Amino acid sequence: MRKPSRDTISRLSLCLRILQELSKAQKSNTISSGDLARELGISSDQLRRDLWYFGQFGRRGVGYSIESLKNKISEILGLNKNWKVCICGMGNLGSALLAYKGFKEQNLNISACFDNDPKKAYKKKGNISIYPLEDMKKVIKSMNIEIAIIATPTAAAQGVLERLVSCAIKAVLNFAPVKLIVPTGVKLRNVDLSTELFNLTYFLSQT
Amino acid sequence: MRKPSRDTISRLSLCLRILQELSKAQKSNTISSGDLARELGISSDQLRRDLWYFGQFGRRGVGYSIESLKNKISEILGLNKNWKVCICGMGNLGSALLAYKGFKEQNLNISACFDNDPKKAYKKKGNISIYPLEDMKKVIKSMNIEIAIIATPTAAAQGVLERLVSCAIKAVLNFAPVKLIVPTGVKLRNVDLSTELFNLTYFLSQT
Repeated sequence: MRKPSRDTISRLSLCLRILQELSKAQKSNTISSGDLARELGISSDQLRRDLWYFGQFGRRGVGYSIESLKNKISEILGLNKNWKVCICGMGNLGSALLAYKGFKEQNLNISACFDNDPKKAYKKKGNISIYPLEDMKKVIKSMNIEIAIIATPTAAAQGVLERLVSCAIKAVLNFAPVKLIVPTGVKLRNVDLSTELFNLTYFLSQT
Repeated sequence: MRKPSRDTISRLSLCLRILQELSKAQKSNTISSGDLARELGISSDQLRRDLWYFGQFGRRGVGYSIESLKNKISEILGLNKNWKVCICGMGNLGSALLAYKGFKEQNLNISACFDNDPKKAYKKKGNISIYPLEDMKKVIKSMNIEIAIIATPTAAAQGVLERLVSCAIKAVLNFAPVKLIVPTGVKLRNVDLSTELFNLTYFLSQT
């Protein structure tokens, strides 16, 4: 089987969020392929191609069952288990991510935070402890943390990433606006907040 | 001319960031279509299709000039002018966005912040003033602000969006994990921090 592209996985992620909203709203049990594609801002063809990688969904003339497509995509994305996540860097951004309500709903549990400021070490934010970087290996192993978020200043990001890799972390979400170098076998995803705004400047330039 | 899709604009945004890094690194003046596509995690065909909307770039056997493609994409995305941006909600996330170094480099200038907490009103963070929501219309108009970022709690987001629309704002980046309703003619872009993590849970589930 051909591997789905990164864009397919991104579209499925967005599709899951839309199905979750529809499921909460409880207005209907099904959605047509056309309506779902419109919500996603893509063509029905693209939606069908994205789902095609993972089997047959929906019925002609009936559309997709919201609950069953939601559960199926959730399973495809690996969200049928609990994931433990750590945040590195407890500045404003790290604190905002820790407080972010959206993660827990998705089985993504922030379990520990790390910061190199000795004044923050062993303090708690909510229920979550902040550990010094020296404790990283021990904490990540004992808590079974599998995903790390980098929210450090730019200059610290590559060093923290290397430390995470040495702690056997295989999946990293990076918010620092810098290109990090990862060894093969480690998945790095960058959230670039500027590029999010480029879609808006493009739109405004066209109008 | 067919309109480029949202995904095309997202890929061009990422492409611009890569070209900016290459330009800073100053290792080469050109990049082959294959190498650039690999950096983007897409096929060369896809890259050519994305650029095709906007004209002819690159020369067979030579590749793309990094500087000229960077400038061209920057222009396509509307970044050849300065944009004034406001942030609504001065909690941890709003403060992190205000401190984010990546915006200014891209001609995106955070010019004002809004918060409904009277204790924050008319205080400054760095050089930027925090205004109460009641001042929004006046401030947005007098400062020529065209883009707004919503970093409020979920419950406040729709109300703030409606207020922004009434202040003639046409482009909004929303960080609150909630589906907002916008009138036509207003461009809303949602940053869903959970979906960023789904790419990682998918990757980990496959390995």
